[in-house]
Order: sequence, then structure tokens, then C-alpha cells
Amino acid sequence: MDEFSLINKYFDWDQGIGDDCALMSIDNGRQLATTVDTLIEGVHFPTETSAQDIAYKALAVNLSDLAAMGATPLYFTLALTLPSVDKKWLEGFSESLKALAKQYNISLVGGDTSKGSLSITINATGIVKKTQALLRSGAQVGDSVFVSNTLGDATLAWQQIQNQQTPSIALLKQFNRPEPRIKLAQRLLGVANSCIDISDGLKQDLSHILSRSKVGVSIDLEALPLSSEVAQYIANTQDWCVALAGGDDYELCFTVPNTHIDSVKSIAKDLDIKLTKIGVIVEKQGLEIKGLNKTCKSYQHF
Amino acid sequence: MDEFSLINKYFDWDQGIGDDCALMSIDNGRQLATTVDTLIEGVHFPTETSAQDIAYKALAVNLSDLAAMGATPLYFTLALTLPSVDKKWLEGFSESLKALAKQYNISLVGGDTSKGSLSITINATGIVKKTQALLRSGAQVGDSVFVSNTLGDATLAWQQIQNQQTPSIALLKQFNRPEPRIKLAQRLLGVANSCIDISDGLKQDLSHILSRSKVGVSIDLEALPLSSEVAQYIANTQDWCVALAGGDDYELCFTVPNTHIDSVKSIAKDLDIKLTKIGVIVEKQGLEIKGLNKTCKSYQHF
Repeated sequence: MDEFSLINKYFDWDQGIGDDCALMSIDNGRQLATTVDTLIEGVHFPTETSAQDIAYKALAVNLSDLAAMGATPLYFTLALTLPSVDKKWLEGFSESLKALAKQYNISLVGGDTSKGSLSITINATGIVKKTQALLRSGAQVGDSVFVSNTLGDATLAWQQIQNQQTPSIALLKQFNRPEPRIKLAQRLLGVANSCIDISDGLKQDLSHILSRSKVGVSIDLEALPLSSEVAQYIANTQDWCVALAGGDDYELCFTVPNTHIDSVKSIAKDLDIKLTKIGVIVEKQGLEIKGLNKTCKSYQHF
Repeated sequence: MDEFSLINKYFDWDQGIGDDCALMSIDNGRQLATTVDTLIEGVHFPTETSAQDIAYKALAVNLSDLAAMGATPLYFTLALTLPSVDKKWLEGFSESLKALAKQYNISLVGGDTSKGSLSITINATGIVKKTQALLRSGAQVGDSVFVSNTLGDATLAWQQIQNQQTPSIALLKQFNRPEPRIKLAQRLLGVANSCIDISDGLKQDLSHILSRSKVGVSIDLEALPLSSEVAQYIANTQDWCVALAGGDDYELCFTVPNTHIDSVKSIAKDLDIKLTKIGVIVEKQGLEIKGLNKTCKSYQHF
């Protein structure tokens, strides 16, 4: 059973579930956006991962969810489960967490520590002007579909680690230190009409935009932005799934009406970030990938 | 190392840590109160605990933290880590969680599910009028110290379970189904000047009020409210620690200026709840327990 079926079947009693963050109105003009993500040793990161990288990623993946809504980070809580108190590990963890929190101007306001197998749950809350939040439900037929940066690097790193290979520094950086696209998201407010972060793979995450917006998409395989390493890997193996279905990318996928295409170009230039058009929103529901002649299995939480 | 040293040493960069909830102002008149608690199988509840009891307690302990601040529950997120997808377990868990959430008018707004050893992290958020929140820092010399209901029942249940005994239904109820004191806390707004929930044991939790308020306390051992079972256990063993240092009580301990003592009596009557004066706040710092001639080891998270 995938996570979405699980959540829908057992936990979807209230409004709010079904986007990167839940939104709660606090007054006439503003909404809180809140999100929670757990990282577990051996499931979400290899046992050898440094305390610094674990702390970074645990916060970054939550910041990525705030980014996907266009929310400005406010505060977070930390539930930390540790097998034992290791001074050096805790120093590394807290220093790294603090540095990232400072960079994105988000405050640690509370926490809980427990004894058990290593697991980190962060709940991050941000704020966004009402009607401005980047939902999954706003895509319209004719919109262009963009993704930031490149696809598949984190998955390729993870595959190499599992095969006892050592990934390059560039791949490891994408795997351990994904950059939350907060700045990009701020600029997409009023430009993009839907947005999601690619944490479970492009195919699966984009399909959430499609179902929420009740539209389809036509993706051009050759347009997918790839790092040289992932491009080389695909050239050797024809395994496009690494870019299409690999999780852990934490890039943004968003749709833009044609009237705002020029803004995307300006944003890319201003922020020095690659923003690539990978397809268009179409009326016929479903996800068409031109050029792909196999199916890719998406990331499953179970 | 205890949890408080751990939190203070490694994670206390921002304001907010150091009460039952963190408080964040959202406008001139109101503050959000947020708290996070993790329950881990084998650490916080026995392996045999039903899905229904686990769900109840996971939310109740967070509601108890909101109560300790006098906050009205608003919403919560759920991070659920499961070894596998067990339909019957999930049904029981979600039904029980939903029932308690409905009872306290709190909405589930988001979640994350992961594969791993059973662990539940809930982050609950409530709202309270500015200047009304029940802090740990407001106790004054001469105040009376009260606790709700009885002390030590949950700890005695846990001890019996660990000794392969079967606790009575009444003890098990206090252990598995602690009642969050939300209604009581609402009535204490403007009456109590400090408050904490007894999750880590009276001695340890009351000491947080003392250090934050920079006062001392004189407790009268004979005044501690005990159920008949705990009273019998203490009569047999002289082990007062079960009531003084046992965790998991989730009752409220609060201080009241003498001008408001009559209000406490009315509240107890209106809500049909036992509220017992157990001591007075004194100038001399420290926790004096009249009648106790041994020390009790408080609950340690590590």
C-alpha cells in the first residue's frame, strides 16, 4: 500500500491533508502552512551518514515543503529519538541544524527527546498571504510545466551507495544536502499557478498536481534537465526511471500560464538557477511521457 | 543525562523552549501554543498495548501540554512509523484518534508515514489570549500549590505490568487513557498564576515551576491525593516515590494566590474534579517535602 492510499484511507477526516503543507487561516490576510517529515536511519539515510548531514536533511526536507507552498519559514519543532546520548554526535547535529535554521530564518521553538532507534521528526511552520499559496490544484490546460535544477542525482547517489560504490561529491551533495527552494518559491508567488516539491519522484509528485487540478500533462523525455553524471548513467543504461521516479530530489515542479513565461526567465537569471520547461498541461487526464517505452515504479513508503 | 540538560545544552538557541508549549504571537491579541511528543513502543507503552490505547495516549499527552498552558486546541500533525501496514491495527488506531480529536475539537491537518519500529510523534497546536497563558514562571511566595485528581496511578500500573502483574481497570485507565485537563485549564485562566502538567512526575515537574519562578515550595507528604490502590501500596511499602516521582500522570499542578482560593473550590465543584492543596510556595528556593525521609529518582528520558 502506498503512503497516499494509507493517509487517504485512515487519516483523511479533516480538510487540509493533500498538499505539501496544511493551511490554516489565522486572520483575514494570512495563513499558516505546516508540514511534518520523519527521517529514519536505514530507511531515509544510510547508517554511515554524518550527524551534520542528517540534521541538515531533516530540516531541509521540511523547508522544501514550505517552499512548495510559497510559505515563508517561521518556526519548527524537533522530535529526536536516539539510541544513546553521544556528545560528539549531538554537537555535530545541533550545530548543523542551527546553521541551516539561521540561513532560512526559522526558529527552533520546542522539542522532545526519546530513547530508541535513530529517528528525526521535524514539524515546520511558515506563513503565506491568503490566496497566494502555491497549491497543487491551480494548473490549467496550456500551462507550461517547469522543474528547478536537475533530476535524479539523489537517487543515483542512493543506488551507488546501496551497490557499495562511492558517489561523486556532486551527487552526494544533492543526496545529503538538498537546497530548499525557498527563494525560488518566493519569486514564484503570482507567477506559478501550481507547485509541488519532488520528494517522491517527478512522476508521482506531478501526478498529484494533475489529480488535484483535474488535468493531464505531456512530458518530453528529452527535455528533462540532467546533470552530466545522470545523463551518462541514462546513456549507458537507458534507465530513465532514475530521473522520472527517483525520490529525494527536493526540487520544485510548477506550472506557469503562458502570460508569465518571461517572468520565469527573469527569475532563473536573477537567482542563477536552472528552470527547465519539461512539458505542457493538457486536457486529457493522465501523465504522458513522450519517448518513454517502459514503466517506472515510483517510491513507496511501504 | 536527563532530557532537560540535553535540550538546554544542545538545542536551546531560540526563545520558547522551557515551558509545556512554545508560544508564538500571531497578532496583538493571541498566541499560538505548540508542543510535540513522541511515544515509542517498549519505551512509553508496552508491546501489548492496543492500537486504540496507543492512539489515545499519543494525542492525549499533547493535549495535556496544551492544557498546561491554558490553550484551546486547534490542530495537530501525525508522524506515524510502522513496521508494516496492518489493516486492523490502523483501523483501531485511526478510529480512536478520531474520537479523541473530535471530543477536544482538534483537527488532524497533516502527516507523514514511514516504515520502521513503531513510533508516534504528534505535534499539537492551540491558541491562547496573550498575557493569559499559564506559564511556569508566575508562582509567587505565599501561593497555594494544587494538583488535580490523584498521583501515582499510572506509575503503579506500569510497575505492575513490568512485574508481570495485571493492574486493575482503574489503574490501567490512568495509564492508557489519561484525561487531558483542557476544561480545567480553561477555568484556571485568570485564577492560577503558574501551571505545568505532571508528565515526568510531580517532583521533577514542580521543580520547573520553582526554577522558572525563582521560588521554593514546601510540600506536605500527607496531603498528596492518592487513589485507594496507591494509598494501599504506599502503606505496604512506604514507597512514596510512586506518587512523587512517577511520570505519566498528566494531571495539572498549579499555583494560586490566596485571593483566588475560593475560585478553585468552585471550579472543583463545577467540573466534579478533585483539586487538592499539597503545599505552599516559599521564599527559600528548593523543594522541601515534609515527612519524606528518602530521595526519589525522577524519570529520565535517557
